[in-house]
Amino acid sequence: MKKYNFNAGPSILPREVIENTAKQILDFNGIGLSLAEISHRSKDFQPVIDEATALIKELLNVPEGYSVLFLGGGASLEFCMIPCNFLKKKAAYLNTGVWSKKAIKEAKHFGEVVEVASSADDNYTFIPKGWTCPDDVDYLHITTNNTIYGTELREEPNVNVPLIGDMSSDIFSRPVDVAKYDCIYAGAQKNLSMAGVTLVIVKDEALGKVEREIPTMLNYQTHVDKGSMFNTPPVVPIYTCLETLRWIKKNGGVEEMDRRAHERAELLYAEIDRNKLFRGTVAKEDRSLMNICFVMNDEYKELEKAFFDFATSKGMVGIKGHRSVGGFRASCYNAMSVEGVKALVQCMQEFEAQN
Amino acid sequence: MKKYNFNAGPSILPREVIENTAKQILDFNGIGLSLAEISHRSKDFQPVIDEATALIKELLNVPEGYSVLFLGGGASLEFCMIPCNFLKKKAAYLNTGVWSKKAIKEAKHFGEVVEVASSADDNYTFIPKGWTCPDDVDYLHITTNNTIYGTELREEPNVNVPLIGDMSSDIFSRPVDVAKYDCIYAGAQKNLSMAGVTLVIVKDEALGKVEREIPTMLNYQTHVDKGSMFNTPPVVPIYTCLETLRWIKKNGGVEEMDRRAHERAELLYAEIDRNKLFRGTVAKEDRSLMNICFVMNDEYKELEKAFFDFATSKGMVGIKGHRSVGGFRASCYNAMSVEGVKALVQCMQEFEAQN
Repeated sequence: MKKYNFNAGPSILPREVIENTAKQILDFNGIGLSLAEISHRSKDFQPVIDEATALIKELLNVPEGYSVLFLGGGASLEFCMIPCNFLKKKAAYLNTGVWSKKAIKEAKHFGEVVEVASSADDNYTFIPKGWTCPDDVDYLHITTNNTIYGTELREEPNVNVPLIGDMSSDIFSRPVDVAKYDCIYAGAQKNLSMAGVTLVIVKDEALGKVEREIPTMLNYQTHVDKGSMFNTPPVVPIYTCLETLRWIKKNGGVEEMDRRAHERAELLYAEIDRNKLFRGTVAKEDRSLMNICFVMNDEYKELEKAFFDFATSKGMVGIKGHRSVGGFRASCYNAMSVEGVKALVQCMQEFEAQN
Repeated sequence: MKKYNFNAGPSILPREVIENTAKQILDFNGIGLSLAEISHRSKDFQPVIDEATALIKELLNVPEGYSVLFLGGGASLEFCMIPCNFLKKKAAYLNTGVWSKKAIKEAKHFGEVVEVASSADDNYTFIPKGWTCPDDVDYLHITTNNTIYGTELREEPNVNVPLIGDMSSDIFSRPVDVAKYDCIYAGAQKNLSMAGVTLVIVKDEALGKVEREIPTMLNYQTHVDKGSMFNTPPVVPIYTCLETLRWIKKNGGVEEMDRRAHERAELLYAEIDRNKLFRGTVAKEDRSLMNICFVMNDEYKELEKAFFDFATSKGMVGIKGHRSVGGFRASCYNAMSVEGVKALVQCMQEFEAQN
């Protein structure tokens, strides 16, 4: 039976990305060695990182003066690297969920943190609005998509300070105005690659402004200076990233990814709103196109496990909601087909007819 | 033509490890999803990390009271995590090469560093002996194998303080008395896996003794408490690690890896010592079994490029020496066959006969 992978992350990748990665692991570019055993400093690997960098700059229309880095450690390590590199005295954070909260916690090791707004009291069911950001902070940090709660901040807030964006779960799903950011970072395991590499896009002139001593590996300048090769980078995850970037380009770039994301999300949210069994969990205007969260309506609560089992029997994978929201979450990253979403919608309709 | 991979790292892996990794990337355990797209919290992945942990404990005979961690960021990140977690006031470091030097540099961010001995003045061509380690340091840090220079410290120094060992390039090549260490760490991309995961073996009771605030991701306790799942771990590199560990066990464990390492190294060093064209670069008693460095004798210096081309034409890959030593380096990790070493020896003999 065909499986539809709605995992929140690590998550679905285009089939050709997976097949090409497997092929290169067996024999990289026909050189008689595995992608897993080549030196990162070899003439075989440099073109991989160069092409991936060029594609990122092209697809996101990255302005001059920004560097693209491929780091290890995950976005969670960035939560500490960001304030370590950018927080001089005071930074602002918008608290839209668990990942924002974790980022805030790490920032407090390095200086004063202003939480400009928070939807914590409402279990992060909306993106706070109508707040202001002080002009004297070093940056405003935002989490553009909240994987757990299913909210998304699809337009940059209008502030007078540089932005720093955790785009782990919606990067490459839509165009972004990179010029508004001093730094964008994203764990790769949603729209980009297998787990094990973190993409960082950093404004060169924003670096070197803090006075603290920064350990070498935590200093973005180290990685800028060495083209992500200060130490051995995660070779295979970077290669898979390149394959995904090629796939995005071939499929029409981030504009087309955006159109597809809207198409998928509109289909699924329409069914959630129509079906008597289900309801969405977040404010409609803040609904994520990537992670679509819904629960059983109160009068059908006891059917939750039955629906999960029914959907699983039809090939749906990874639709269990995060424990802090409950219910269901269908993550619809770039590689999710409209067909997959239609299959889920059909499950919801068939289950409604049976109940 | 068959290629023999003498790369220093990322480096040769057993062929069955590569083939099984590629297979699981296409379809993980027959579940209809790629290893690259499964959730790290799924019932499919937990057995991977559990089995890998159990095999590490079994193969290295790890005593009770130690935790095994799989982290991102590479051994270079450990250079800063080690002092951050263990250095209260003063730590001792044995300087045996570039990696030791980098570790020392990071430790100085966190406290006083005593360099107990150094072979820097002789381009690290030997392991210093006859030094003493102060008893009042928090630990002594050693680099057990020096990839660049080709020296190896195969017996723990006799000191009264806990050891911390960077075993990136010789872990699982020989038995180790883990009880002597508070912490052992190793980038995976030599004897363990593809690049992208770092193995850490840490003594639980050695943690929590420093007073400084430690950012969450840099705190070993975070990863101990969460079984390496505080954040998304590098799923595929960990899986490849498991495959390698299974291969090591099936092939007789670290005792057999040690026997094979001696067999390979003795073959190659014997040829280096016999052949009129070549000489070894380090003190004989400190020769590494993993990275075998040699140069042309002075009177044959002009033949260096010719030998490199000749060996390359016979399928030898990655034998160029590091720029700080010059000449040649044949890295002979666990997966290198005796046949591979014999092929290199044959190149050396044929080239000698021609010149």
